[in-house]
Amino acid sequence: MRMVKVEASVSLRRDLDTGTEMQRDAVDNIITQVIEQGDHALYTLTKTLDGAELDQLRVTEAEMEAAYAQMDEELIGALREAMTNIRDFHQRQLRQSWLTTKEDGTILGQQITALDSVGVYVPGGKAAYPSSIMMNVIPAQVAGVKRIVMVSPPQADGSLPAGVLVTASELGVEEIYKVGGAQAVAALAYGTESITPVDKITGPGNIYVALAKRAVFGKVDIDMIAGPSEIVVLADETGDPGYIAADLLSQAEHDERASAVLVTTSNELAEQVSVEVEKQLALLPRKDIAAASIRDYGVIYVARDIAEAIHVVNELAPEHLELLTKEPMNLVGKIRHAGAIFVGSYSSEPVGDYFAGPNHVLPTNGTARFSSPLNVDDFIKKSSIIAYSKEALEANGSKISALARLEGLEAHARAIDIRLEGNK
Amino acid sequence: MRMVKVEASVSLRRDLDTGTEMQRDAVDNIITQVIEQGDHALYTLTKTLDGAELDQLRVTEAEMEAAYAQMDEELIGALREAMTNIRDFHQRQLRQSWLTTKEDGTILGQQITALDSVGVYVPGGKAAYPSSIMMNVIPAQVAGVKRIVMVSPPQADGSLPAGVLVTASELGVEEIYKVGGAQAVAALAYGTESITPVDKITGPGNIYVALAKRAVFGKVDIDMIAGPSEIVVLADETGDPGYIAADLLSQAEHDERASAVLVTTSNELAEQVSVEVEKQLALLPRKDIAAASIRDYGVIYVARDIAEAIHVVNELAPEHLELLTKEPMNLVGKIRHAGAIFVGSYSSEPVGDYFAGPNHVLPTNGTARFSSPLNVDDFIKKSSIIAYSKEALEANGSKISALARLEGLEAHARAIDIRLEGNK
Repeated sequence: MRMVKVEASVSLRRDLDTGTEMQRDAVDNIITQVIEQGDHALYTLTKTLDGAELDQLRVTEAEMEAAYAQMDEELIGALREAMTNIRDFHQRQLRQSWLTTKEDGTILGQQITALDSVGVYVPGGKAAYPSSIMMNVIPAQVAGVKRIVMVSPPQADGSLPAGVLVTASELGVEEIYKVGGAQAVAALAYGTESITPVDKITGPGNIYVALAKRAVFGKVDIDMIAGPSEIVVLADETGDPGYIAADLLSQAEHDERASAVLVTTSNELAEQVSVEVEKQLALLPRKDIAAASIRDYGVIYVARDIAEAIHVVNELAPEHLELLTKEPMNLVGKIRHAGAIFVGSYSSEPVGDYFAGPNHVLPTNGTARFSSPLNVDDFIKKSSIIAYSKEALEANGSKISALARLEGLEAHARAIDIRLEGNK
Repeated sequence: MRMVKVEASVSLRRDLDTGTEMQRDAVDNIITQVIEQGDHALYTLTKTLDGAELDQLRVTEAEMEAAYAQMDEELIGALREAMTNIRDFHQRQLRQSWLTTKEDGTILGQQITALDSVGVYVPGGKAAYPSSIMMNVIPAQVAGVKRIVMVSPPQADGSLPAGVLVTASELGVEEIYKVGGAQAVAALAYGTESITPVDKITGPGNIYVALAKRAVFGKVDIDMIAGPSEIVVLADETGDPGYIAADLLSQAEHDERASAVLVTTSNELAEQVSVEVEKQLALLPRKDIAAASIRDYGVIYVARDIAEAIHVVNELAPEHLELLTKEPMNLVGKIRHAGAIFVGSYSSEPVGDYFAGPNHVLPTNGTARFSSPLNVDDFIKKSSIIAYSKEALEANGSKISALARLEGLEAHARAIDIRLEGNK
């Protein structure tokens, strides 16, 4: 791995993939087609793009039963345990509506309500990601969203992977459509004969899905557009080089543009990790991807002390941060920007990816400076409540009119005045 | 006003103004200019676009003193009282970081931190809006944002309106730059010699400002892109036609594309409000704007009963909702989508625009289905905390590896395995 001294300015930002002009045009065309032709467009596009000829879009009970027959019991047990942990963690985020009252009769507050409906996109392709379904569906369920729809591109034989169907069923998701790509996003935003539109679309996808989400944003809400994944490990001389190398590689295997960074105060550890990475890398099934990621976006920073190391971490604002130092919990309060903080030697990143409970949908590419892991708040909204009494308006009305007139808004002032006059 | 029976589907959505191609090109050019030429571009563009020749961008203490000399003492008092109310309401939204522990040593939680820096855009033009400064700055301050920067286009003589400067100073905002338009947004996102970049940009502006915010989104965070403003009044036969007409007009005077809607169960009230609107409209200084808004986007819906009326309101998902019914508080729980709910005859919308405490930056154009008033959460972010003990990893490690392998991610599984082996 590339080893560098910490310099004044640290950045590993990668440009967001906004697609080629051809890709953007293709997405625009697909969206128009779905708006104009509804289901017909979905069937046609699914045949062309996924090679699957479907009789109906919605997954049937028979398909679900077939999926269960294929799944290993023990795996279902592990999935259920993960769901319990994830549900528990997200339930702790739930907030209550609140009111405050004043003696003059004023009532102010926030009413919290769930979104009515959410669509979750589940990518197809080689790897089907049950964890991604859990991480998107559970926060919405905990928030109280009544209608949760899932969409995912069918395989060429018209089926969805068993792991995807069983995970959905275990979560209680019953409305599942076999449609993917930009056409699925368009259907969720605009609706077709089979698919009633939703209020928000979440979940990862390829560049076409990302471009479609960007295009329908405003018509519906979307979650973040995820960039390539990244991990930063902060370690002192007590860090275990084998653990650290394994964690760096678990990030690197995701994507050639993924980034794996070690920030350490120990020259010796830096050397050891570099050797371990090469050793473990050679034995990985996805070694080509991981090697490219390590080559292009793998860095070891050697810092003079922990303070400098933490400065580097905060500049990077990583998606995943691991603290492998002597007293790692004491450093948590110094971390200003990170999606998820994994504390201590046994908190390997995959613990959070699958099982512990916190969400694995995290802000990438430095956006932890201003955004958060996917959470229950992403599926609720607040309405302000303002109830003024006659007494409160009489006491404050003239000040309100004065402020309105300061801004040149006479009709605003008069809406107050008419009530004050009426009271005379 | 146009009077209609409630039909199956209700929508008043207006297309978002995404500018002309010329406007978009102009904004792109301005952003490039600021990135390449820094302060020089800001001075040049301010001269060309605002007609102001400046010696320095940052507002001086002397300018601030001059502003105070122009302001009415009583108005300053009203501003201070409004600030106290707004600060109090937003302080109640503050959340704590939290942790949960398990007997096996696991610690999970969310660490809440404020954004480091925020830029607030304050529009220039005829009406200077002190209320907008309060509504954007106070939530950021309450959240704990350390650096808050304000930008606003200077008048031709190179000054900012006294109301703007005094409001900023009363709030403790000390870093104010006399620059507006897309160039101000670009400077906040990319930085120049004088202006250090920020992490998030909020505040309303004209189409150039909106397009620039959209363009820099991702590099920094932005608040919502506001559409035209709207009010819906829900009233039964107890509603006061004079009050209702005044409130509808207070919305209509904002903008020709603003929308003012009455939903009522009373035919008689519908008639009376229609007459009152015409009467009051004729006497307004901004009557041309208000008349256009009422003509194009003013509607009175007559519903059969309150249930139908509420259905209409939820379909509209209004920015501002007023409840002028017999027992209005009882209806609040039935409202699923609204930016702010004004309850009862004395809660005229301007009460919330200026004074009561809740934020006046609200989701427009039906987006209350999935978004919220500007609030403290918009200026914080959460980091997940995951600390697993050796015991917890030994108990759960094999399940985590199995889930990783189900997704075909072998390096993830090995990052767990290496720790389990190490413990043998």
